[in-house]
Amino acid sequence: MDEEEQDEQQKVLQNLLLLHELNSEVVTKRDAEKFLEALATKSSKRHSITLSSLLLNPFVGSACRSFGFLVSKARYVVSFLEDVVPAKDLGSGELLDAVEQHLANLRSKATPYYFNTLYDPHRADSVGFVRGYPFSLRLGVTTVMSHGLSLGLPDYDAPTAIVKPHERTQRYVDAVVTIPKGSLFPLSGSNVAFDRRLIGPCMLLRLGIGGQDSLFSGSSSSTSVDDVWAGLCAKVVADHLGFGVKTGVPYVWRGPDSSFSSNGAVAGALASLKTEFKPLLLLEDVVPFFQTLRLSKNATNAEDCYAEIARMVKGKLRGLDPSFERVAAVMETWADAWKAINSAV
Amino acid sequence: MDEEEQDEQQKVLQNLLLLHELNSEVVTKRDAEKFLEALATKSSKRHSITLSSLLLNPFVGSACRSFGFLVSKARYVVSFLEDVVPAKDLGSGELLDAVEQHLANLRSKATPYYFNTLYDPHRADSVGFVRGYPFSLRLGVTTVMSHGLSLGLPDYDAPTAIVKPHERTQRYVDAVVTIPKGSLFPLSGSNVAFDRRLIGPCMLLRLGIGGQDSLFSGSSSSTSVDDVWAGLCAKVVADHLGFGVKTGVPYVWRGPDSSFSSNGAVAGALASLKTEFKPLLLLEDVVPFFQTLRLSKNATNAEDCYAEIARMVKGKLRGLDPSFERVAAVMETWADAWKAINSAV
Repeated sequence: MDEEEQDEQQKVLQNLLLLHELNSEVVTKRDAEKFLEALATKSSKRHSITLSSLLLNPFVGSACRSFGFLVSKARYVVSFLEDVVPAKDLGSGELLDAVEQHLANLRSKATPYYFNTLYDPHRADSVGFVRGYPFSLRLGVTTVMSHGLSLGLPDYDAPTAIVKPHERTQRYVDAVVTIPKGSLFPLSGSNVAFDRRLIGPCMLLRLGIGGQDSLFSGSSSSTSVDDVWAGLCAKVVADHLGFGVKTGVPYVWRGPDSSFSSNGAVAGALASLKTEFKPLLLLEDVVPFFQTLRLSKNATNAEDCYAEIARMVKGKLRGLDPSFERVAAVMETWADAWKAINSAV
Repeated sequence: MDEEEQDEQQKVLQNLLLLHELNSEVVTKRDAEKFLEALATKSSKRHSITLSSLLLNPFVGSACRSFGFLVSKARYVVSFLEDVVPAKDLGSGELLDAVEQHLANLRSKATPYYFNTLYDPHRADSVGFVRGYPFSLRLGVTTVMSHGLSLGLPDYDAPTAIVKPHERTQRYVDAVVTIPKGSLFPLSGSNVAFDRRLIGPCMLLRLGIGGQDSLFSGSSSSTSVDDVWAGLCAKVVADHLGFGVKTGVPYVWRGPDSSFSSNGAVAGALASLKTEFKPLLLLEDVVPFFQTLRLSKNATNAEDCYAEIARMVKGKLRGLDPSFERVAAVMETWADAWKAINSAV
């Protein structure tokens, strides 16, 4: 972004973050270039080329967002897509504070080992645990991810958006659920918060799963399952390391506004079907891959787990689609970048 | 119950069931006696003594309820405790039809192999599956249990009821969730419906887990974890056989009414702490037992699975508490009674 835009953005951001006594820092393309130069002296040439291509080609959307996760100094990262606005409280009509609700989810424990029927027992206004919940499991574990939902236009894949153009999500479900250990879920990158230190390396949102080989050029360089992939990685890593993942509130609002009519949505979905088609089909095999994946005891942090998944992707998914060769290389490089950042701190 | 009571009960029941075009049949102690006489000719003497003691000593509460499950001819069973009344719709104030909602849960598919973030995608008014949900997993599996929730007095164990006497559940969460495969939950027997043919044998609500050896005499012959135990059995069997278990709506209302003040609740909880104490402590080991239990490929229906769990209880839990010797024997007998009923049909 140019300097003027950057100033404007920074002002908006700082107002929002001051509200929660959080720090903000705007990351620019120049920061990414400097980071890559520094890394190049320590890393292999192949790695630094892969990373340059990933981050700078071009430095927009999920690429610059993922770079922000990497270099942030914050414990918690809250990430919204550009088209997201706060949802309104059903009763009072007031705007809901999604940042506050994400932080509440992350700061309270999760319960992945046994299902509490009255939902998140560690939520501040919950009645807690019901009869039959073992006392030794009530302490819970550290929450590393808070996955929020959206009202309005449902988060559909292209085929579903074509088939159900008029569908809207209007049910505000006032609940938070810990997704049980061993169960995977489809992460949407539009409204999510996570513990950067404990799970951050998994949240690379630009891998181009099932995309073309010349993928890291042009603006549409993420495919529609890249965030889903990040969620699958994050969940298996959280399960392996003994952390929890929550989903539910906070809700945000996503279209449809006047510029995004049902007609427009269908036209958009028809256009993206061409590129989404293959990544979506790959998911049918990718999900079982993650469901049966077992990490080794040596993998004791997210960077190591992510590197281990990269090696399994190379070994087991290469035959499924040629893009996984590149995906594995990028993941390995990304794990190295996180190790470099962490060792420099 | 006596004849007059029985007539009255039957009238109320039939009105409710006619509404849903369901059949009702009131089961009496005489029916249980006849059933036991018939079984005695086919079964071992030890078995028929165990079963008589279980069902007739006395024929009340969970004992007569469980016998009803056994001899019913219905596909679906809906079971409410006596202190349960319908909950009200938040918006309109109208009474919610819990029977209809249970049947809707049971008649639609469940999705135990992958978590749908917008809750039950097979609910009639759901927007369905979100992006990232594999198409091959969308068909779902047969639902064998619908576990409802309650508003009002939370379903606490005795220690929690003492510690939090004023707590009330008031959050109506308009959602249904399939409890993922591999995840267990604390079933409450107060508001539950299930597929009798596919999971019925697991729903024996009177085992006296952690109770005294002379347990099947006197009215308080179920302990507070007997329904939880039934739920643990049902969930591991459903997971093994490839069926789904849902929890969420319908809600019912449970106290507090004038006769059940906070003071009364605390006094009641203090009294029951004496008998509940041991069963509750046993849960700390019972839950890991069920979490690690693996059924064999030979167990292809609920009766066989239940009998197999009985043998594991005998082998692995006997050392934990002497009551498990009796529990295992009762479970085995119960599985035989179901086999006898099914072979007679």
